[in-house]
Amino acid sequence: MLLDQIKKPNDIKALEPVDYDRLAEEIREFLIHSISETGGHLGSNLGVVELTMALHLAFKLPEDKIIWDVGHQSYTHKLLTGRKEGFGNLRKYGGMSGFPKRGESDCDCFDTGHSSTSLSAGLGFVRARELKGENNYVVSVIGDGALTGGMAYEALNNAARMDTNFIIVLNDNNMSISENVGGMSKYLNNVRTADHYLNMKEGIYQSLLKTRHGQVIVDSIRRAKSSVKQLVIPGMFFEDMGITYLGPVDGHDVNGLIKVLREAKRCKTAVLVHVLTQKGKGYEPAERHQARFHGAEPFDIETGVPKKMKTKANYTDVFSTVMIKLARRNPKVVAITAAMPEGTGLKRFRNVFPERFFDVGIAEQHAVTFAAGLAAAGMKPIVAVYSSFLQRAYDQILHDVCIQNLPVVFAIDRAGLVGSDGETHQGIFDLSYLSSIPNMHIMAPKNKWELSDMMKFAVAFEGPIAVRYPRGEAYDGLELFRSPIHFGKGEVLYEEEDIALLAVGSMVKVADEVRKNLKKRGYSCTLVNARFIKPIDEELIRKLCKEHKLLVTMEENVESGGFGEKVLSFVNRAGLKRKVETITLADEYVEHGNVDLLKQEVGIDADSITARVMTAYVGL
Amino acid sequence: MLLDQIKKPNDIKALEPVDYDRLAEEIREFLIHSISETGGHLGSNLGVVELTMALHLAFKLPEDKIIWDVGHQSYTHKLLTGRKEGFGNLRKYGGMSGFPKRGESDCDCFDTGHSSTSLSAGLGFVRARELKGENNYVVSVIGDGALTGGMAYEALNNAARMDTNFIIVLNDNNMSISENVGGMSKYLNNVRTADHYLNMKEGIYQSLLKTRHGQVIVDSIRRAKSSVKQLVIPGMFFEDMGITYLGPVDGHDVNGLIKVLREAKRCKTAVLVHVLTQKGKGYEPAERHQARFHGAEPFDIETGVPKKMKTKANYTDVFSTVMIKLARRNPKVVAITAAMPEGTGLKRFRNVFPERFFDVGIAEQHAVTFAAGLAAAGMKPIVAVYSSFLQRAYDQILHDVCIQNLPVVFAIDRAGLVGSDGETHQGIFDLSYLSSIPNMHIMAPKNKWELSDMMKFAVAFEGPIAVRYPRGEAYDGLELFRSPIHFGKGEVLYEEEDIALLAVGSMVKVADEVRKNLKKRGYSCTLVNARFIKPIDEELIRKLCKEHKLLVTMEENVESGGFGEKVLSFVNRAGLKRKVETITLADEYVEHGNVDLLKQEVGIDADSITARVMTAYVGL
Repeated sequence: MLLDQIKKPNDIKALEPVDYDRLAEEIREFLIHSISETGGHLGSNLGVVELTMALHLAFKLPEDKIIWDVGHQSYTHKLLTGRKEGFGNLRKYGGMSGFPKRGESDCDCFDTGHSSTSLSAGLGFVRARELKGENNYVVSVIGDGALTGGMAYEALNNAARMDTNFIIVLNDNNMSISENVGGMSKYLNNVRTADHYLNMKEGIYQSLLKTRHGQVIVDSIRRAKSSVKQLVIPGMFFEDMGITYLGPVDGHDVNGLIKVLREAKRCKTAVLVHVLTQKGKGYEPAERHQARFHGAEPFDIETGVPKKMKTKANYTDVFSTVMIKLARRNPKVVAITAAMPEGTGLKRFRNVFPERFFDVGIAEQHAVTFAAGLAAAGMKPIVAVYSSFLQRAYDQILHDVCIQNLPVVFAIDRAGLVGSDGETHQGIFDLSYLSSIPNMHIMAPKNKWELSDMMKFAVAFEGPIAVRYPRGEAYDGLELFRSPIHFGKGEVLYEEEDIALLAVGSMVKVADEVRKNLKKRGYSCTLVNARFIKPIDEELIRKLCKEHKLLVTMEENVESGGFGEKVLSFVNRAGLKRKVETITLADEYVEHGNVDLLKQEVGIDADSITARVMTAYVGL
Repeated sequence: MLLDQIKKPNDIKALEPVDYDRLAEEIREFLIHSISETGGHLGSNLGVVELTMALHLAFKLPEDKIIWDVGHQSYTHKLLTGRKEGFGNLRKYGGMSGFPKRGESDCDCFDTGHSSTSLSAGLGFVRARELKGENNYVVSVIGDGALTGGMAYEALNNAARMDTNFIIVLNDNNMSISENVGGMSKYLNNVRTADHYLNMKEGIYQSLLKTRHGQVIVDSIRRAKSSVKQLVIPGMFFEDMGITYLGPVDGHDVNGLIKVLREAKRCKTAVLVHVLTQKGKGYEPAERHQARFHGAEPFDIETGVPKKMKTKANYTDVFSTVMIKLARRNPKVVAITAAMPEGTGLKRFRNVFPERFFDVGIAEQHAVTFAAGLAAAGMKPIVAVYSSFLQRAYDQILHDVCIQNLPVVFAIDRAGLVGSDGETHQGIFDLSYLSSIPNMHIMAPKNKWELSDMMKFAVAFEGPIAVRYPRGEAYDGLELFRSPIHFGKGEVLYEEEDIALLAVGSMVKVADEVRKNLKKRGYSCTLVNARFIKPIDEELIRKLCKEHKLLVTMEENVESGGFGEKVLSFVNRAGLKRKVETITLADEYVEHGNVDLLKQEVGIDADSITARVMTAYVGL
């Protein structure tokens, strides 16, 4: 095995060029087998095997810096930097991350996770290099999808001013771009990197001078330095910004890639290398089902079918179904996603109401202000974005939606711990950042039926409102409790004495278990489903404080600015003098791993909470 | 006066074209006189007098929608929609806003304030129009500066797909763009809007066919539909995205503008009208000192000099001075601003350390992740951004800086109430949104010396840290208190009993007044300058709780997730059973007006707080 010879960074350089294809094959085989067992991002990694090899051959790590945008495509990079053994515990608690991590290797120079950050970070490394008088290379590898995010453009805009080398590798796996380029690509690439270019430029000038207005045009071209390039190469968008464009090149041809990367190293400006790759390359099921293999569960290699078939609906399915019902009833309902039609469950909505569905790309900021515009014009937009990605639009929610008190509904999926994607993807801040915003309202359902009911309530509501729900299987317990939703009111499930448990969303299920545990130990417990995180149900909290000795709040969110602090604030303000035990996540990032395991680790599982409540009660 | 004949929307249409110049002159005169009395955004408004007139002549309000990006340039729009009387109380409490407000007029269809939102909002109006089967026009007016913001690009990227009319007016007052275009602009504009275009295209094809590689190039051009346009017009960047480009046109020629806007109305796609304007046009001091007249205080019309000369340094000056000292001592110090070299005080830094200064444009997201890259590469970046604009970078702070625990310093100017700019600019959320982020640390200085000391501390600190300070005059009282700053420790100014006042930043001054008030009434008060908002000084708070009957926190920030809630959480968690009176801003947006007046209105002035503290104490 060639792969076995690669034990540390730069070991790949000992290989002969004739062996490159064999290594690529071995890497693919390894990734397919490994990910079929552990799950992980398969398609994107199969797409960049040769590109990663070429980067490791053309550059010297860790001196040179490679920044992987998003980062889920860094598996081959991990293999080539001596982390093969880590794949057995990929994305498991305590195991190797599915993203670059500075803590894992000095060849991971910058942690990523969210989209479109690599160019900004890369520019930071470039400027630092210049100021320190060093001479390493900095390479940011960004996908064509990530290029739809506004911050990538902000960075390109800044890269355009560079008078020093900065290499942007555009990993383009979208067929629409290569079609535009068509059969010209190989030819143009040769033109661009060879002497033909200058000769051709003069030729064009001479021909233009013979046309009507020719002199004026040529004068203009001479003044605008890159116009001729724009005529004959496909990267005019980038050249227009002042960024040298190389490519497109075949992303599965290691030698071709090395050649163009060497060319890029010679540039004294920001240079974009346009690389065409195929997502899922080399594994037929992944080539065919690109979305399914984006972030896959363990699967059967022969068929590509997940080993564990989903048996229960998840919250996304419930949202998906109710959206179609709501849109049938109300012609004002429109749905917006930021590049996540599958992930948010809006794909079905798109099929039924194509004209009322908007996928804006990886552009959460635009998604939210676009929704504000729609709402100001009388529509009822539902913005479906994952909790951690909605962080991108904090200002737009605050400034464009809530100042104007516009009726935009936020359907926040993946709220709470999400598991194997780790720190960057945990949705554990939304209750805090949304609570700080005036005019915002926040709800969370206890089970799948309540998600439907809340979506109906939210669509009928005249103001900004968010419904947050977790990743994964929808809870179908507590099915007997389905009282109508009233604004700002919690739902009392069991009314007893001693201890009042007041839980938010996913924690209602846990609170129900805690209640059972406590009853076994002789405590009597009231159980309340908060339903509303903002506003809180002050009347009910007052009652709970009066009728119980201890009030316990539970939420899957950090403490600062969360539900518990809001309850505590009210209890203090109202002079209720009742101890409040606030069960929240600590002021820490939570790493990757199985969600149930993580909940134990951070102390929000039923057993941990039971123990905490008993301690608090005893200490009163 | 022609201006007096304009009492409501569309009245301008009764004017004869020969009167347009006179009206423009009257509007300028009115604006200069009015703003010289009240203060306000002068330069940007003088730049768009004719453009606004042309928009009102070419469109029908309120049916057609005009969205002003940022919105501080909407004064002529306000004049032409019957709000002339409002200028006497412009930006005063209870008076007319300096920005578009839906509450003020049905001709203001969308509130703005922060940059780069108008295209996203405009697209919302366009999609709503299509879905409702209406046929009004939607016009977003965006400056070339606002176009450096990523969300404008996200919107352009989405506008490119449109098969319906959407008019983007690019109000370009930056000379760099018109220089690039040079003398070609007028000519090209004619070419673009006339029949010449098709003839010329054929002519170019014929000439190119005679060159080397000619056939291949022409084939390529025919396939890529807009390449020829890109050769001969300056708007290739936009055309490349699929947006029709018209212009550039003289932004001070009403008739020319009307002509091109009528052309734009006929497009069945998104169309960008490139308008060249001059900031400050028609008022010589404003033409010469563009930055000074961006948002001006009342000034003398003859000289352009502010009526009230600044006598005391403001916090921005203090920051400006200390930054140069810090950079002299530490070669790793670099400074980043998002289009605010004057506003943040970094202009002096730029002059002294040009290579260590980075103005990234209106691009807060990039600014923060760029800083993260610099920090990961060993530099010590200071990001100076106003509190309300830093909201744009919440995810970047959380995801790019704090997960990696990178030593980036955030210098947050305009924190707290800012006054006349109103809701969109109040810096009253930063303690909340920053507190929710693990690994973040937050400080606020009580006076000008402490700002210097805190900046020194922050630059020496090994992790993410923010220093937030208010707009305006730097407090120079309490000058005798200047104990060294220790991590996470508050500063006890006066130690007595009864009541403990624990104040953050600007509120220390107020707390000092409150203490004097309370002493007059016979209460004895301890006064503590919190210094650190995160982490809080738990040891000190424990002591304060034990030694006093009431603990009062004070901050210029909303309640949710702020300092008071953090203190209260600790008091509850530690079982200290002490009443905490948290003085914060209410869960509401705060409108424009004089800061001292606003503080009274929202109850954070010394008298209001004194009364609240006494009530709380009596009620114990």
